[in-house]
Amino acid sequence: MTSPAPVVLVFLDPAYPDGRPADASQPQLMVTDQGATRGDGIFETMLAVRGAVRKIQAHLDRLGGSAEALDLNIPGQDEWRRAIAAAIAEHHAQYPAPTPGDDELVVKLVVTRGVEGAASPTAWVQVSAAPATGRRQRETGIDVILLDRGYDSDVAERAPWLLMGAKTLSYAVNMAALRHARRQGADDVIFLSSDGRVLEGPTSTVLLAHVEKSGDGTTLKRLITPQLDSGILPGTSQGALFTAAKAAGWELGYGPLEPQDLLDADAVWLISSVRLLAPVNTIDGKQIGTPSLQKELTAELTGLYAGIE
Amino acid sequence: MTSPAPVVLVFLDPAYPDGRPADASQPQLMVTDQGATRGDGIFETMLAVRGAVRKIQAHLDRLGGSAEALDLNIPGQDEWRRAIAAAIAEHHAQYPAPTPGDDELVVKLVVTRGVEGAASPTAWVQVSAAPATGRRQRETGIDVILLDRGYDSDVAERAPWLLMGAKTLSYAVNMAALRHARRQGADDVIFLSSDGRVLEGPTSTVLLAHVEKSGDGTTLKRLITPQLDSGILPGTSQGALFTAAKAAGWELGYGPLEPQDLLDADAVWLISSVRLLAPVNTIDGKQIGTPSLQKELTAELTGLYAGIE
Repeated sequence: MTSPAPVVLVFLDPAYPDGRPADASQPQLMVTDQGATRGDGIFETMLAVRGAVRKIQAHLDRLGGSAEALDLNIPGQDEWRRAIAAAIAEHHAQYPAPTPGDDELVVKLVVTRGVEGAASPTAWVQVSAAPATGRRQRETGIDVILLDRGYDSDVAERAPWLLMGAKTLSYAVNMAALRHARRQGADDVIFLSSDGRVLEGPTSTVLLAHVEKSGDGTTLKRLITPQLDSGILPGTSQGALFTAAKAAGWELGYGPLEPQDLLDADAVWLISSVRLLAPVNTIDGKQIGTPSLQKELTAELTGLYAGIE
Repeated sequence: MTSPAPVVLVFLDPAYPDGRPADASQPQLMVTDQGATRGDGIFETMLAVRGAVRKIQAHLDRLGGSAEALDLNIPGQDEWRRAIAAAIAEHHAQYPAPTPGDDELVVKLVVTRGVEGAASPTAWVQVSAAPATGRRQRETGIDVILLDRGYDSDVAERAPWLLMGAKTLSYAVNMAALRHARRQGADDVIFLSSDGRVLEGPTSTVLLAHVEKSGDGTTLKRLITPQLDSGILPGTSQGALFTAAKAAGWELGYGPLEPQDLLDADAVWLISSVRLLAPVNTIDGKQIGTPSLQKELTAELTGLYAGIE
């Protein structure tokens, strides 16, 4: 257990236009809050680099989609933006980055259904320094195991009450899957549907690349991700990277994908907002692609991603 | 929205042998508690009648099983018993029952993984008056719809990381299913597996009864519940009622059950620790059994259940 980074906390509160700052080192939630008693709420985790939140509009839009799926009436995007700016400014004031310019913050937005009987949800922004683990894994890559997610790939469409496309606070299974991976010496998980399709990581989106030399000597590069209608969370990082990769001449593709597609790829990544592109070295102990090509592709896509606002 | 009943709160804390009382009307949880940010924790909900908690040993045992499934190191049963007794005594002192003898309290045990980086979980007991809704539904019965739970009935065995038999705080889907039912004018839900087996309610166990007159004029009564290995939560109330019903001459049966078995039953109930036996009047709008026989069987089983300690 490592000591967690200090947290700056700002509640969204109609009485405070820029949010209501609160001391995160003190208790601030009721035990009867339905976020705590039932995981009944939603969240987003974003990265701020040198004070600017990456893909803030995509995150706010996805938060809105999650709120709709859960029938939560959440604060407006302007209120979120003001509270986010206030929390980041406060973090900069209280905890200046040790190296100027090397300043990555995790910005988490959380909304719960509030305490039993409450008319409005509990909503807050919390900001802390990005953890070292994620930054390290961008460099070293990760070992992954495949785990059954239990759902078939048609479930999202037929059973909206399962909240498949919403980012809810009910993450106990995602966390249990990660613990299961670590007990087996792996770093992370790729979930499969019960009918054998590649879905997503517990906290990330799956990407794979194929590189082909065509007859005339040009190189064709394809970036592929599982199709959204399989009940996965739409990845804001995947979405932004796809746009940037397309502009740079990559072809784009969308699943259905099977485990063999991962094993046959030239490179596989788990992409998420804070850890960014984590190259997958092995899946169930099997080496993916070749280290040199993986490294080259990772550097190229990381460069493209760095240009995203 | 109705105003919730006042809550008495006692934290489990090694420094306090009988638990540490705290003011539930004030914030007592950190926003970084993983119960609140990830639904990463477990709970039990119990009923105390005139100060005595029903089936306390079964609940403490199930809490222990949930803790094991989630790799949580929780306080011992003696500590729980002392904190529960203290919380109930405090509730009696602060909020005496309006009608002496008519005293039903909800006793909830909650354990979260604690704040990020914490060495020990956050654990508490909360006590409040039993809500009127549940007591009313025991009398009036409920209308139920069938909803797909998305998992097939073999998943629990092959994928322990899905935590199927654990009572986790990640209840967002259970709550979404109940909202979905209410939007359709129903009161509750019976989940089906993706392969069409009857599973459980979002917060209850399914029971059904068959009554047959045999040739010699005796009456054969069977009480049936879905088999446990379909990935449902083992019901403490179902378990206790089965023991009592067997002693009273009922035959017992265990699924697999299909929706048609529910429609063909003489009576169906959802049973849970606080609401107890709620007779199911309709499923997807279809009347179940006959009102008179349902009433008779409900009265008999409720009488048997009242004898359970």
